Amino acid sequence: MEKSARRLLVVRHGERCDLTFNQQGVLLLLSVDIFSQLLCCDRFPVDPRINWMKQSFDTNGRYHPFDLNLPRNLPKRNDGFEMFASDTPLTEMGYLQSKLTGRALRDYGVKVDHVYCSAALRCVQTAVGIIKGMDSRTLKINVEPGLYEWMYWCRNSIPSWMTPEEFNRLGYPINSYYIPLLKPNDLCINETLNDFYERSFALVSKILSIHSE
Amino acid sequence: MEKSARRLLVVRHGERCDLTFNQQGVLLLLSVDIFSQLLCCDRFPVDPRINWMKQSFDTNGRYHPFDLNLPRNLPKRNDGFEMFASDTPLTEMGYLQSKLTGRALRDYGVKVDHVYCSAALRCVQTAVGIIKGMDSRTLKINVEPGLYEWMYWCRNSIPSWMTPEEFNRLGYPINSYYIPLLKPNDLCINETLNDFYERSFALVSKILSIHSE
Repeated sequence: MEKSARRLLVVRHGERCDLTFNQQGVLLLLSVDIFSQLLCCDRFPVDPRINWMKQSFDTNGRYHPFDLNLPRNLPKRNDGFEMFASDTPLTEMGYLQSKLTGRALRDYGVKVDHVYCSAALRCVQTAVGIIKGMDSRTLKINVEPGLYEWMYWCRNSIPSWMTPEEFNRLGYPINSYYIPLLKPNDLCINETLNDFYERSFALVSKILSIHSE
Repeated sequence: MEKSARRLLVVRHGERCDLTFNQQGVLLLLSVDIFSQLLCCDRFPVDPRINWMKQSFDTNGRYHPFDLNLPRNLPKRNDGFEMFASDTPLTEMGYLQSKLTGRALRDYGVKVDHVYCSAALRCVQTAVGIIKGMDSRTLKINVEPGLYEWMYWCRNSIPSWMTPEEFNRLGYPINSYYIPLLKPNDLCINETLNDFYERSFALVSKILSIHSE
């Protein structure tokens, strides 16, 4: 690649509700062979008794947060509230992390021209917080399913996401005209780690080619 | 005490900069007799190389936070910036904790009529966050030095605090007309644990007697 004045900032999402409040059975993991776990494509065993979804939703799908670090409200989603289990929101602290990151970028004079973001709710909320922290009135988020994480982490089911229209209705700064480079159906549930690297590389190359200097 | 409809909420301060960013020499402590430490009135040995004040203030007293969880700005204080070492501000997360607590109090319909607060900056900032989280436009903080922590924790020096006037200039909702029940000089540096309990009990009793039903 030629020398370029372009800069690409890769940002991870903030603290997420599921990993913060679900009890991971880590002690169980230590008693088994970690490599056989990985080869079998299993996840860490999860203790189903301690689960933020089971604790905070009643049988009618009404949300009652049980901890101040859980979001006070959750958006309605077309695919049903159950989908928060595989498409977690940020915690309150996670959203603050993203706002502080945006504020620091602004403080250090970092100018951002374009924002591309995975379709995962936690990533969109992180991008929203960064843009808010930067105090930008113009940046819009291009929601790109091709930036989603390694499909290995999906627990063998196709992920379900909220749509850009739903994000827009929440007041998130979304680019409604953006046409994704990859559709959700282009993601392969049996993706190997190498597939994931290749998907990410091809996608980022495409994005960079759109924004020539 | 007679049965009463009054309720007294006792709130601890949020996450503080010093305990979050100073490296406590805990491993050193384990190699000595913990009881002799306590009897000698020593504190945990602190590793002076890892200290939020030394890392974030230059020799001219200019503040440059080195972590996003440190406050972006610190107020000027009449007693000198060095006093932040013994009178720590809250971290960003600590301030969010206090706002979330205030919001939850409001959500649960808890009505607060009077606020009394230690003169320590971390406590005043916590009270400010709670009042902000409650979205109260009327509550004012009565800054009461008598609510300060056990003097044992003061490292054998008289604590130095910011004044209510300084807090007011920062935009904090302070009751400027409040006359403290105890003056800073009334606090005894050699206070025993029992002295501390008695001070706290006498002070809270006095406050309750002011607000009869």
